Parts: sequence; C-alpha cells; structure tokens
Amino acid sequence: MTFSATLPNFSSDYQEGAHARVLDALVATNMEQSAGYGTDEHCERARNLIREACQAPDADVYFLVGGTQTNATVIDAILLPWQGVIAPNTGHINMHEAGIVERGGHKILDTPAVEGKINAADVERICSAWEGDGARDHMIAPALVYISQPTEYGTLYSLQELEELSAVCRKRDLKLFVDGARLAYALASPANDVTLADLARLTDVFYIGGTKCGSLFGEAVVIPERGSIRQFVTQMKQHGALLAKGRLLGVQFEALFEDGLYLTIGEPAVQATARIREALKRAGYVVTMDSPTNLTFVALDQAGHERLSDKVRYSIWETLPDGRYLARIGTSWATPEEDVMAFEQALAR
Amino acid sequence: MTFSATLPNFSSDYQEGAHARVLDALVATNMEQSAGYGTDEHCERARNLIREACQAPDADVYFLVGGTQTNATVIDAILLPWQGVIAPNTGHINMHEAGIVERGGHKILDTPAVEGKINAADVERICSAWEGDGARDHMIAPALVYISQPTEYGTLYSLQELEELSAVCRKRDLKLFVDGARLAYALASPANDVTLADLARLTDVFYIGGTKCGSLFGEAVVIPERGSIRQFVTQMKQHGALLAKGRLLGVQFEALFEDGLYLTIGEPAVQATARIREALKRAGYVVTMDSPTNLTFVALDQAGHERLSDKVRYSIWETLPDGRYLARIGTSWATPEEDVMAFEQALAR
Amino acid sequence: MTFSATLPNFSSDYQEGAHARVLDALVATNMEQSAGYGTDEHCERARNLIREACQAPDADVYFLVGGTQTNATVIDAILLPWQGVIAPNTGHINMHEAGIVERGGHKILDTPAVEGKINAADVERICSAWEGDGARDHMIAPALVYISQPTEYGTLYSLQELEELSAVCRKRDLKLFVDGARLAYALASPANDVTLADLARLTDVFYIGGTKCGSLFGEAVVIPERGSIRQFVTQMKQHGALLAKGRLLGVQFEALFEDGLYLTIGEPAVQATARIREALKRAGYVVTMDSPTNLTFVALDQAGHERLSDKVRYSIWETLPDGRYLARIGTSWATPEEDVMAFEQALAR
Amino acid sequence: MTFSATLPNFSSDYQEGAHARVLDALVATNMEQSAGYGTDEHCERARNLIREACQAPDADVYFLVGGTQTNATVIDAILLPWQGVIAPNTGHINMHEAGIVERGGHKILDTPAVEGKINAADVERICSAWEGDGARDHMIAPALVYISQPTEYGTLYSLQELEELSAVCRKRDLKLFVDGARLAYALASPANDVTLADLARLTDVFYIGGTKCGSLFGEAVVIPERGSIRQFVTQMKQHGALLAKGRLLGVQFEALFEDGLYLTIGEPAVQATARIREALKRAGYVVTMDSPTNLTFVALDQAGHERLSDKVRYSIWETLPDGRYLARIGTSWATPEEDVMAFEQALAR
Repeated sequence: MTFSATLPNFSSDYQEGAHARVLDALVATNMEQSAGYGTDEHCERARNLIREACQAPDADVYFLVGGTQTNATVIDAILLPWQGVIAPNTGHINMHEAGIVERGGHKILDTPAVEGKINAADVERICSAWEGDGARDHMIAPALVYISQPTEYGTLYSLQELEELSAVCRKRDLKLFVDGARLAYALASPANDVTLADLARLTDVFYIGGTKCGSLFGEAVVIPERGSIRQFVTQMKQHGALLAKGRLLGVQFEALFEDGLYLTIGEPAVQATARIREALKRAGYVVTMDSPTNLTFVALDQAGHERLSDKVRYSIWETLPDGRYLARIGTSWATPEEDVMAFEQALAR
Repeated sequence: MTFSATLPNFSSDYQEGAHARVLDALVATNMEQSAGYGTDEHCERARNLIREACQAPDADVYFLVGGTQTNATVIDAILLPWQGVIAPNTGHINMHEAGIVERGGHKILDTPAVEGKINAADVERICSAWEGDGARDHMIAPALVYISQPTEYGTLYSLQELEELSAVCRKRDLKLFVDGARLAYALASPANDVTLADLARLTDVFYIGGTKCGSLFGEAVVIPERGSIRQFVTQMKQHGALLAKGRLLGVQFEALFEDGLYLTIGEPAVQATARIREALKRAGYVVTMDSPTNLTFVALDQAGHERLSDKVRYSIWETLPDGRYLARIGTSWATPEEDVMAFEQALAR
Repeated sequence: MTFSATLPNFSSDYQEGAHARVLDALVATNMEQSAGYGTDEHCERARNLIREACQAPDADVYFLVGGTQTNATVIDAILLPWQGVIAPNTGHINMHEAGIVERGGHKILDTPAVEGKINAADVERICSAWEGDGARDHMIAPALVYISQPTEYGTLYSLQELEELSAVCRKRDLKLFVDGARLAYALASPANDVTLADLARLTDVFYIGGTKCGSLFGEAVVIPERGSIRQFVTQMKQHGALLAKGRLLGVQFEALFEDGLYLTIGEPAVQATARIREALKRAGYVVTMDSPTNLTFVALDQAGHERLSDKVRYSIWETLPDGRYLARIGTSWATPEEDVMAFEQALAR
Repeated sequence: MTFSATLPNFSSDYQEGAHARVLDALVATNMEQSAGYGTDEHCERARNLIREACQAPDADVYFLVGGTQTNATVIDAILLPWQGVIAPNTGHINMHEAGIVERGGHKILDTPAVEGKINAADVERICSAWEGDGARDHMIAPALVYISQPTEYGTLYSLQELEELSAVCRKRDLKLFVDGARLAYALASPANDVTLADLARLTDVFYIGGTKCGSLFGEAVVIPERGSIRQFVTQMKQHGALLAKGRLLGVQFEALFEDGLYLTIGEPAVQATARIREALKRAGYVVTMDSPTNLTFVALDQAGHERLSDKVRYSIWETLPDGRYLARIGTSWATPEEDVMAFEQALAR
C-alpha cells in the first residue's frame, strides 16, 4: 500500500520510525557487545529510570516488542485456566488482536463500554454473577480486569475512576492490568490527572508503550510488586516475546526516560489533535467523542466519507450500527506541523 | 445436595438413570467380551440404525460420553486456529461450559439471541464484518455456526429457519453444527417440523443426545458427509472423549434406535411440560417463552420464587436484568405422572 | 472388529462390563432422582468410603469417566504454563494418549524407564539440569512427576521406591501423581507392599481405577491434602470430564468400596496371570518382564507370533528395536477360568 | 551481566547491533511514513529481492521478529491438532525455546540426532510406527519435519542429505521446514553445497535469519508454493509476531539482499571460526564436531574450563553425560579481527 504524496496522512500513530534521541542512541551503541535477552546494562539502566519515574523502586520491569504480544503474555501469565479477563467490548484484546487471548486458552468476559471505558460497577456485577448457584463450577471466574489508558478511542480514565476500579479489584481479589500502548499521549494531555506513580500504586501490572510513543518498537511492562508474577521471562520466551538482542529495548527506553523525554514526547500530538478537532467541528463534522489525547473520531455517512477522504488520509475504525463509518484521525510525536496546517486549510475551504 | 422427599422435582432432565429398554440391554450384554474404543459390533449396529433413521447411509457416526465434551471435540475438530464459531449469546457453549471452547483456543463470536435462537441475517452480518478493511488480518474468521435444537430455552428452529441458516452457511463457506443434547424432545413435539433426515441434509455435523433422552450417558455425533472431518477418533482421544468400553455407548444407542424408541421417548415429557405450562398460566405465573418441548421458563420476583419453591423443585437459570429470577422447570422421559399431577394440584390451590 | 469365537481372548483388561455387585447397584438405583455433577448422596458416600480405605479423612475425592481424561485433567490442573511433567518414556501419557498433555500446552520431560519405572535419581538429574546457566529462562521447569502403579508393563513400585520418589519430590518442590488405572491388580498382588494409605501419604494426587477394575467406567481421583488443587470441578468441566449423571460414578464406587471389594477384586486376575506366565515359560516363550499383576509381556519373532496367535488372542504392545513384537496378554476380574485353562492346555500341546 | 573488558568475547553471535549497511538504511528511512504490518513498499521490495535470490518467483515471504517466534508461528500454522513435528532431540525447538511448541498444543516427535542432524531413515521409521495396529487412533501423526541449516552445532546438511529428507517427506506427505536462523553462515561456508534456490526447491517453508546475520532483528519466512499456508498474517498476529512498524523488517532485509550482501556477510565469521578451531586443536583442546560454519564446540573438564575461561568468553552449551562441559565459541559478521588474534595468541602461550 502506498500513500498519496499529496494528502496529509493521519492513518495511524505508528507511521514513522523513532524519535531522534532514540535513533541516535541505537546508532551510538550499535557495535557494543552485550549479553542477550535483556540481561545487559542498558536494560538494567532503563529499568531503574522507569522505576524512578513510577516511584516504584521495587517494581519488576520487562521489555517486550509489541502491544498485542505484551497483552497476551501478561494475561496468560496472570490467569489460571479456570479464570477469565474482564474487558471493555471495545478493548483492543477483544476486537483487533486476532483472538490471541482465546488462543491462549482464556475467555474474555466482555462488558459494554461507554466511550471505550468500563467502571467499578461493571466489575462488581460480573463478580456477583459468578457467585450464583452452581456458577462457580460451570462458569469462568473473573480474575483480571483489562483496560487501556488512553482507551482505543483516545478517552481517559480519571484518577477517581481508576481508584474505584482498583478498589473493587482489591475487594474482589482481581488483578488490574492497564494497557498503556499510547500512554505518552495520556501523560501529555492537559485533561489527564493520572501519573505513572498512580498507575504503579493502583494497578498490578501496566505497560508503558514505546512503539506508538517514540521508539522503533518496544513496550515496558511494570509489575509494581516485585515477584508477584513468577517466571515472567520464561513466559515471554513461550510467547516468542523475548528479544535476542534485548539491549535494543534497553537502549530505546533509556533514551525515552532520560531527562523525562517520555513525559513530554506526546505534547505536539495532543496539541495537533486539539487543533484538528476544532477544525473539524468548525467545518460541521460530527466529532463523536471528547478524546483529549491523540485520536479523533468522526462519524461519516458515505458522502461525508468521500468528501473528507479528499482532504486527508485516515482509517475507518468501524461501521456504526446506523451504517455510518467511524473515521479515526491519529497524530503522533512525529506528526509534521505542515500536515496539521494543510489539513486545517483544507477543512476551511 | 439432597432433594426434599415431599416436593415433585423438576430441577433438570437428567435426574434418573436409563430407560428400561436401555438398562436391560446393558445388563443383557454385560459379560460379553468386546474390542475397545467403539470398534465393537454393538457400536457398528447402532451406527447403522442411526444412519437409517437419518436417511444418511454414508454418514460417519461417533459416540461420545457427554454434551460439553461433544461440543468441544466437534468445534475443535472443525476450526483452524484463525477461525471462530458463531453462537447465540445464550448458547450452552457460551454460558455454562466453563470456557471449554476458549480453552481449546477458539473465540466464540457471540450473537444476541431471541428466545435462544439466531438467524441467517445474524450470520450474514458477522461474515460481512470480517470483510472490512484490514479485518481479515486482525480478526477471527467466522467458520462455523453452533445452534441447539431444541435450544437451551426449549424453543425450536422451524424447518424454514434451519433451511435459511444452512443456505447462508453454504454461501459463506461456513459449517453448521447442531447441538441435539435434547433432540428427542424436539422430535416428540407437535410443534416440530424438523426431522433427523432434515438435520442430516442441512447440517455438516449434529449430535443426537442420549444423556438427557433415555440413556445413562452418551451422545451420537453424525457427520453426514463421510470423511469430512479427518482423524476424529484421535481428536476424541485428545479430548478424553474416547470411552475405553465404547460398546456401552453402542449398546445404549442400539436400544434407543431399535424400533424407533428415540422418536417417541420424549412424548411424555412434552405432554407433561404442556400441562405444567397451562397450570402455571392459570395460577398467574409469567411463562416467558413459548417452548413446546420439555422445559418451561417462569420469571419470578422474590415473593413469587418463595411461593413457587414451596410447591416444586426447579432450578434458577439466570437472574434477569430487572432482578427477577428466571426459573427453569424441566421434564424428561422419566418424569413420574404423579409428580405432574401433584404439581398441578399444588398450583390449583 | 469381532473376536474369534474359538480362542480365549486376553486382548485387554476392559473387555467386559461391570462386576455383578456394581451392575446390581446401578440397576437398583436406576430410577432414583439425583442432583447432577457429583453433588448427590451416592457420590458423597463413595467419597467417604474411599477416604476411609485410604486413611485420608481430609482428602478431596473426585470422580471422572476415563483414564486419559483423568490424566489430562489432573496434569493441567497442577502445572502452570512454564512447568512440565516428568514421566517415564514408556508412560501412558507419553505413548498412547494422542498427545493430550501437549495439546493441553505442557511438555513431557520424558525419562528412559526400566521395566516401565523411573526412580528418584532420574528426577534429581532432571531437576539439576534446570538449574544450569540460563536454563531457567529458556527451559521448561520440572514441577510434577507422573508414574503408574502398576506400570503399563504390569510391574510394581516397591514401597521403598515410592518413598524415595516422594522424598525427592518434596525436596525439590515437585508434585507426585500416581496413575492407578489398574490399581486393583497391584493391591491384589502378593508382590505388592504399597497400600492405599501409603499412596495417600506419599503422593499429592493419585487415582483409583474403576474402568479396568470392575466398573463400567470411572476413575476416583484422591487429593490427600484438601483444597490443594483449586476449582477442580470447573477444570473437570473444561476437560469435558464432569459427568452430568455423576451419581453413576458414585453408585459404582460405593459398590467397589463396600466391604472392601476393591481390595480383592483383582485376585483372580493376578492368579490367572501367574498361571499363564508359568505356562508360557514352560512352553519356551520369552516372558520379558517379571510383572506380578495382570499383564504378561512376551517377545515374539514373526514365527512365534504366528504360532501363539493360533492359541490365544492378545495385543501387540510395540515393535522391539530388534524387530520382534512385544505381545501383551491381559487378564481382569472378569477373565473366565475356562479361558485360562484352555490357554494352558493349548500351550501344553 | 557485564562482560570482562579484557577478554575477547565469543559468547554468542548476537552481541552487536546491525551491519553498517542495515543500520544506515534504518536511519535513512526513519521519518518516512509507511503503512503498518508489512504492507509497505520496503517490505514489498525486500520480498521481491528474496524471491529473486531464491529463484522462487511465486513464493510467499513474511517477516517476523525473532527465531523462536518464527518457529512457533510456522509450526502452529502447519500442524493440525492431531499432528506432530519430527525434530532432532538437539533441535532448538526441543531444548531452548521454553516449550513453546507444546504450549501451542503440539507434540515434538524427537529423534536422536548425530551432530545435530537427523536423516531420511529416521523420518521413515517414525512414519512406520504410526502405521501399526491402533496407532492412528491413539498416537500423534507425524506431519512435519523440522531441521536447522546450519544446525545448533554449526554442522551442515549436504545437498544429498537434504534431497533425501525432502524425498521421504513428499513420499510420506509430510512438510519439511528448515530453520535458517544462522543461514548466512551456511551460505558463506566452503563446505556448503546447498543454495537458497535448493532450499526453495526442496522445502515447504524455510526462514532466512536476520537477527544473527546482520540485522537488529528479523527473520524472513519463505513459503515457496504461494498460498500453501492460509491466513499466515492472522496467525502471525495470534503469535504476537506481526510487527506494527513492519517496514523496519522490510528496510533491513532490503539492505541484506541488495547486491547479494546476505550471501557474503557470514564469510569473516566462517574464516574466524576456522582459525579458532585450528588454534584450539594446536593447543590440545578436544574440538568435538567438525562444524564448518560459525560455531566451535569444545569438550572441557573442570580444569580445562577454568583454563580456557581465562583466555576467552564463551558459553556452556550443555553438560555431557560424562560430566564434562560442552563449550560453544561463536563468531559473527561483527567479530573483531583483533579478538580472533588475541584469542589465537592466548592459546599459543
């Protein structure tokens, strides 16, 4: 697939390679000799930088290559065979990961989401259903909650919502897992009040996305309570997720967490998205969700789709029940300023 | 759990052992020496009786022990790893089989059901969704449709509905699998117009339930097109579903299909259920579905539940969204006439 | 497959139905109404009889249908994904269960066996290998030892051998699982010094075989330490191993453990096998293992095979490295005295 | 783990980053915008270069991240649930991939290897065993042969050996899969007579290793017969093996196959290994296998291990049955000439 050279391209947030500081670090360390599988010094240093940023000095930190792989490895490492994972029905694991959770043997207890989010009451309700007569013998036990911050729709859990989810999980003896594939865009959003330290305090495991947030690839799994997941490296290996040259991940996350780069890397994307959203609204498009991060969703009928696709490249996220398309317009740390301007001007015409 | 000696017991349709003719056959053949694993003469004869009853002379017929096991073995034998099974969200595989399909590695593409049933349009819609941009690489492919006849709610697919489902499956290159755990109660219902021969003509695989329909245990899988599922016996073995003394299954199905016993064995249950349903309605209970087979569903608030549970033993199938209980009252080939009368009288008081 | 009417048939130890006392109990209880899935009174009583026979008053006892199913359910319930099971390379799970353990996701760490047995030193050696540099990250952890008593070759672990295996397992934090599919033939052997109470004392889980030892079907899993395997019923369900009419298993094991029937039911078989072995030796056949239970193994070249197969029906267990066949001659509780005599006479000719 | 600064380091062949031409290509394309998941132009061009190099114009070519992941994805995509893979007992999938094949549900039919290799007669023997009486129902069917070129011991299959393996696979309807994680070192060896075109002609699938042969990461799977594995991209996704920024793989393999770089990139390593082997022999060490590629194996007793580890860093591959260590000394495209000289000089002292 080749892209039109003439249209600004907002198809996804992983179109470019790595942030300059990340790429420079890879080049600078290229001929160093390192031990494999994440046992090298760069990984160790990156782990410490992440522990510090999360105010979680005892955390286990592991580096994996991609998001789907990370979701599957974490979920499989936590669930026993008779347990399942509660997830929003719009969650990435439920929709666009080719059934990897089920292939791993686990049922997703999917829950209707509102703007990509579920809440503590949803979790409570599912837990209660498992208590009914005979349910425990014949039904999958809820044992884990999976959410994304920001969500697949660019929306955010507030600190209060996350506190409530965390509380119900602890009350019900469930684990809480936050998929942070786009976490840099939450951290850079003025609307966000959840810090890395909050995630470390409130979850059992979360990951800090690199692939969509400045690195060539890579996701950093943070397990705040040391040792709470046993033999995680072996389980990475069993998922094909243990990179031989693990130091590539260490080097990239070192660069991302040096001088707090990760905390600000998403700012241009969040600002670009805010401008695009305003421009779309001014041009009369229906922006469907108030997503304060790096994704914008627009509901389009066929005519609208034809009109907008003349101005910009985007992706179709889903077809709505009423037949309209839900278009997704994404920005990233790498989005060129001139593309945003070109799109604003096209919409203004 | 012990049952009250004083209340008629309609908790389930598998409370007793075997029909007298089935039990007699087991006793009569007890000291015969047979080869194992279904390679004996009784199995062979039972297979032929079933082929005849289904007008499917070329069918492969296999005997398994129980329903959940049969569902899992059939589904796993049909699906490739990247394929999933379309099923009603109320289907047994989705609700009460402890995630056995997911444990086998497969996603259930669940579909909102009406009175336990899905239709051709549901299947068409799911197939279309898999055609969208990028969907094929990132989403599970629909490859099989699972339905139950009668459904878990005692309702029936009409011949026309089944013809339509079969047509859409063939058009879309999906397989159609009918769970017949309670099939005898469909065949015995005056409301039914689907014969065994229709099932053999319209499906790729179905099973004829024994456990709930007169035998101690056992389900007969019928695959109308010989050889269309390869190495099924090995896959039974891999599911722990290959009974060592396979002849026990042959003997029982021989008895069930001798002189057409299976076609009429459900009649007393269907009649008993009709009487119970009438009596409930007369007594002012809300019978929620028009199920013409051997199950009756009554929606009960807490007071109603307390009142009814004084008169009869039943099971709570689920809690409705409005908080009421959905009670299930089941009959079987073995339901004592005096229990039906006792319940009618209790309701009339 | 039909058997020659004229030859005594020692093909396997599961050719007939059930012992008369077991069958009578099934007939006597046939029209009782029971709750499903093993929650009935017969199951409860059978559990208590087994606890008593094992001197294990706190044991969890579960009833499953067949041996392969039981092995898979137990192994899957114990192992975490990164753990494997040590087993003799001749063990049933390794050879003749269609890869059910691997299908469940687990590696068998197979160990060369001597006459079907492994020993404490084998276990120690495998555990040591997992300690080597890097091994823990890249190799499967030994976590369970699977053995059979008697073995697939009819041989027996002595009490001392079992004590040693148990000791190394506890030292190394491994579980010990004994497959007792033919346990009655061990208990009835004069060569045996391992009691049910020893098994309960020295293992983490074992099962008492019914299918080959007097019942139509059924295996009783004994877990001496109550609660040490969580949610076992759900995991049975996930393996298609939770019989709907669970009371059939309860009734049969009640009969088998009433008045100690199980402890003596194997005696005729053990005696018959001793006579057969003597007769074979007298006739010049090579009886390869000193198996003091109900199986006899004879190594046969092609001519010997042709000669012996004129006198008796047996099964070919394997082809030896030197090209000879290893024939297996089995007896059971049901072996007719006249068949033993007929075979002795045929051999004497 | 940190390496001694003073010793030449031959611990593995993946200690450095990427070959200069590969790294340059990554830098040059860093800010290009590409479609994801391997649908970009660089991947397409790399595919064509590989097709050309393999003289396989119709081949499907897919790019994955690492070797274990590739082995699992390919094996799972080929095998049906009742089928297994024949592999040398020393094969990487059997020893050091944390049971990923079994976790995927498949049994490895392992075969004693000689110098890391198996032969056509081994395959024939395993196929014959599956034909025996009853075997097909109760045993896993051989369906795939997995070998490595070069092997984990640095040895090579000759063209004749590969022709024979290919012939037996086609005769027996098995697939043949060659793991080429270190393929560049075979192609660069004077002892090698197997070309890329031979691999495309004789196998059903093989992969061209990038991780150990000049790229940061990446393996190129070649399926000579287009379409013979269905939905491979979905199955990559299910294995967490579908890189979001797929173009990173395309860019690297473009660089490796531009101007035939891949065919010569291994030459320095092969020459370095030859010099090291000679130097070791001169110094009296027992070089155990005649491996003409980039790995050298030396059997060491404890004293020898202590002596040699003062001169060079290597890895311990395994402990031999006699208690000695098998040391592995690896070179790569990146091995510094001065390290080879330093080691030669140390050995000469």
